Amino acid sequence: MQDTSLLDRIRVVLTRTSHPGNIGAAARAMKTMGLSRLVLVAPDSFPDPVADARASGALDVLNAAVVVPTLADALQGTVFSAALTARRRELSLPLQMPRQAAPELVRYAQGGDVALVFGTESSGLTNDEVALCGMPVTIPANPAYSSLNLAAAVQLLCYELRLAAADETAPQTPPEDAARFEDVEGFYAHLEDAMRDSGFYDPATSRRLLPRLRRLFGRIRLERDEINILRGIVAALQRKPD
Amino acid sequence: MQDTSLLDRIRVVLTRTSHPGNIGAAARAMKTMGLSRLVLVAPDSFPDPVADARASGALDVLNAAVVVPTLADALQGTVFSAALTARRRELSLPLQMPRQAAPELVRYAQGGDVALVFGTESSGLTNDEVALCGMPVTIPANPAYSSLNLAAAVQLLCYELRLAAADETAPQTPPEDAARFEDVEGFYAHLEDAMRDSGFYDPATSRRLLPRLRRLFGRIRLERDEINILRGIVAALQRKPD
Repeated sequence: MQDTSLLDRIRVVLTRTSHPGNIGAAARAMKTMGLSRLVLVAPDSFPDPVADARASGALDVLNAAVVVPTLADALQGTVFSAALTARRRELSLPLQMPRQAAPELVRYAQGGDVALVFGTESSGLTNDEVALCGMPVTIPANPAYSSLNLAAAVQLLCYELRLAAADETAPQTPPEDAARFEDVEGFYAHLEDAMRDSGFYDPATSRRLLPRLRRLFGRIRLERDEINILRGIVAALQRKPD
Repeated sequence: MQDTSLLDRIRVVLTRTSHPGNIGAAARAMKTMGLSRLVLVAPDSFPDPVADARASGALDVLNAAVVVPTLADALQGTVFSAALTARRRELSLPLQMPRQAAPELVRYAQGGDVALVFGTESSGLTNDEVALCGMPVTIPANPAYSSLNLAAAVQLLCYELRLAAADETAPQTPPEDAARFEDVEGFYAHLEDAMRDSGFYDPATSRRLLPRLRRLFGRIRLERDEINILRGIVAALQRKPD
């Protein structure tokens, strides 16, 4: 693609960060690789002079950071997102490595905003947070000690994104009209209502159904038209036959 | 190669580090990628509680760190070394990117110890320090702001080394009896003496000659036998004809 301007469409989302120093160091890591859009979900302390100090020459990235209350807010308007996770989760999508994930993110960035989501320092992302994202990503690490510093993980992923954006050999085809985060979530909510109304889904007893469906549709990476078709089907099925 | 045990042969050398926190963070970055051999050249402050705190679960790496007075000491016994540098230097060897450099380092690690050398936070490595190493490496970065944090750079290189060591598709051939650092330096010293004795080299006027020779022989990556041959030639030429 060799188009590092696509990096402007990539949001780096830090979720419930405990240490303001890590926010500053993440801003610096982003800027060294040409990324600039930092989104903070419910940080413990921001703005903070410790963050400013660690940002070094990337105060502009830090000062332009957007603070939002939930991860869903951070993902509004995105057409694709990746979630960093060290853990293997039973019902998640297949885990990708950064080297495979970065070209996918850059490819989707040709069609709109994308997000790269990092969890809190101590415990990472919750299962629910990972489930909101289109692709779980794990950094290959020493099995005996895999605890990367948050800003170090941001550095590593932004490096892979820069290389992917600059790669002339990468596929040129942008994704076809990828559905936005809020459209996909609207479909899931619609489907959940319909299943509950029909008696097929009982939240008390079938706790695995929704994650399974997210896994299924997450693998497909729905397009906008497909969302409309699926919601049309669900709506049609909800109507009682005459 | 798919042999991450080769990572045990890679020394991470930090030169004249100013901030002990960066030493600790570098130890953590190394351990997450399975590296353990940290060498510190004349650090400003070590040991230091700030380094311990930032090392997190990598105190073992920090406690095993070796402190030496000069970079030449840190390179004793190595068969190959790479120097991180942001600057482009007139007379240096061709700059490599981490993705190309890491497989080379791992390949040489099959034949002995190798080193990956990082400079001081403020100004990096001196030209003389870079000249002691077999391969200058630069991290592809934002031209408008390329100042990676030291530990972030260590994280990124160690990540590339881990991937290279685990790569089954990489070439299996170890280098043929690569010459050790001290053998190569011994040859340069011998050559310099011979050139000075002969009147060919005047340190006061021909300041570029030695760097040019380092560039020439550095590209070749001398083997042990070749060092013996070259020193034999120089010795022979030094002897006055009858």
